[in-house]
Amino acid sequence: MLHTLHATPKTVHWGYFDASLAPVLRVKSGDLVQIEAVTHHAGDAPDLLMDKDIERLYREIPESDRNPGVHIMTGPIYIEDARPGDTLEVRYLQMAVRLPYGSNLAANWGHLYKEFDEKERVTIYSVDINSNQAEALFAYDFPGKYTIPGTITQPKDCCREPALEGVRVPIRPHLGTAGVAPDVRGRVSTIPPGAHGGNIDNWRIGAGATMYYPVAVDGALFSVGDPHISQGDGEISGTAIESSLNVLFQVVLRKDFAFPSPLLETPAEWIVHGFDPDLNVAMRQASLEMLRLLTEHQRLSRNDAYSLMSIAADFVVTQVVDGRQGIHARIPRGIFPPRKLSL
Amino acid sequence: MLHTLHATPKTVHWGYFDASLAPVLRVKSGDLVQIEAVTHHAGDAPDLLMDKDIERLYREIPESDRNPGVHIMTGPIYIEDARPGDTLEVRYLQMAVRLPYGSNLAANWGHLYKEFDEKERVTIYSVDINSNQAEALFAYDFPGKYTIPGTITQPKDCCREPALEGVRVPIRPHLGTAGVAPDVRGRVSTIPPGAHGGNIDNWRIGAGATMYYPVAVDGALFSVGDPHISQGDGEISGTAIESSLNVLFQVVLRKDFAFPSPLLETPAEWIVHGFDPDLNVAMRQASLEMLRLLTEHQRLSRNDAYSLMSIAADFVVTQVVDGRQGIHARIPRGIFPPRKLSL
Repeated sequence: MLHTLHATPKTVHWGYFDASLAPVLRVKSGDLVQIEAVTHHAGDAPDLLMDKDIERLYREIPESDRNPGVHIMTGPIYIEDARPGDTLEVRYLQMAVRLPYGSNLAANWGHLYKEFDEKERVTIYSVDINSNQAEALFAYDFPGKYTIPGTITQPKDCCREPALEGVRVPIRPHLGTAGVAPDVRGRVSTIPPGAHGGNIDNWRIGAGATMYYPVAVDGALFSVGDPHISQGDGEISGTAIESSLNVLFQVVLRKDFAFPSPLLETPAEWIVHGFDPDLNVAMRQASLEMLRLLTEHQRLSRNDAYSLMSIAADFVVTQVVDGRQGIHARIPRGIFPPRKLSL
Repeated sequence: MLHTLHATPKTVHWGYFDASLAPVLRVKSGDLVQIEAVTHHAGDAPDLLMDKDIERLYREIPESDRNPGVHIMTGPIYIEDARPGDTLEVRYLQMAVRLPYGSNLAANWGHLYKEFDEKERVTIYSVDINSNQAEALFAYDFPGKYTIPGTITQPKDCCREPALEGVRVPIRPHLGTAGVAPDVRGRVSTIPPGAHGGNIDNWRIGAGATMYYPVAVDGALFSVGDPHISQGDGEISGTAIESSLNVLFQVVLRKDFAFPSPLLETPAEWIVHGFDPDLNVAMRQASLEMLRLLTEHQRLSRNDAYSLMSIAADFVVTQVVDGRQGIHARIPRGIFPPRKLSL
């Protein structure tokens, strides 16, 4: 069955996951969901990044209700029969550009904020869906400090200047933040990623990819947000090219398979994640999660898995932004003999 | 002009760079060099990884002369007219397998040594140069602790067991260690990478890649070693598939271009490196080197460069092994307008 979920003031929650939120949609395993994921950076160029329905979200959801994180999340979606300990398999099928523009903010939480004398700057990109490329349209120094999620900066409030002339980057639309509700009382910030998924910011979570999220509460309560047009591994300035996306996915409830951290599958690779403010710790976690994948699910011996990780797994900085650092490890699927993995 | 340099007890130095070493070859800018790079892990399966000439190196170079690092380096090569401040451009043209076998050691300096109860283990791989794939041939627990570079373990000294049945990994032959002599008195360990290059362990330093090394002493004194058949980013067990390679490269002396850290160019990307035992620090260094590449050589403004790094540069753990940690940053070449970079 195909469900459609628009992003309206009644179907989004801004800045948090919350296990006590009433579901806005109920689906069964196998169902398809067409859903709107709306960027929380539409205010960086409201003339380009907002349509009437996005404007309404920004107008009707008060600033005081956007916390403790920053992302606009559509959901939650209740998956029938999902119980803690199950795995929610989400097959991302399509990520379509809603408005062909996006915003990159060099943010106060960016990796080189001090090196840039604590200046914040917005660069607006336009997207050519024909060539699948983006190029900068203009940029401006952000007036003041970017502390309120959904801040709106009108053209008259800033000085729009040319930027990155002649440079065109490939686009790779994906969800920066998506996940199930953690089993925690009250609001959980959307900012730090974790076992529930959340703000993983891996640009491989796009169309064609499948994510496995460990279910923590009845119904899973899955939400999506923080859509990106493109991001480098590291997301070094603090943001990607942030842009609203219309997303089609299928949910499959798995009771036969469990993995304790968000597992990502692309046509070519399996990818595990480690999260910690200290990259050295995130690195060790990613190593141990890869060891787990190869031993528990690929059924290699520990010895074999360790050797294989050293010669064929690539460890990559997912994001480095303060408080949400992560390292992921990728292993090609094609190196294994057929039909061995328990996925 | 094409020069040939065999690895003999007189043309290798084991474990160190040294600016006072007499050159074993003198070449001019533009010359080609066919050179033998010999693995220091040939002793892990001497029946497979050694031929007579490799045996001779291990026999004639005393253990007491293999320090303070571990790698067998062929060279140094003196490049005529090279002076401190110049850049040595090395175009790697060919990396041919010498013997179709290699060794991966889960080493005492590996990332998960403690998690493996301080056990060391060797996995021997065979290489199929037809399919460009490697597969494990056997593995054994290393008897004792692997502390002497070039240790020889005969088949009778260990218990060879089957390993990684059915798994085949793509090979990507490259040099783990190559570089110019640092401007330092006495021996400099080959283990930590640095401005001179050295043990960078980036698997992209293979045929088709070009490296730019900052020259520190007259003649540059370039040496190569530590050949690898394959490695994952991270090199998590402490080693790659270590295997001797015959390497063809061209040297070009550049007085028109400088970069303070080892810069790598592949057909698709430019890659800069940060090195530090703390991955958080290595990450910052790699960011700043990418900023430098984009501003000084791609001539972007700092603002533009920072935005571009966030949306299109990928930050990757080159290696995580104790004392030689590094992170590199990759940016696609195809995103820039033609003929702008000063390389």
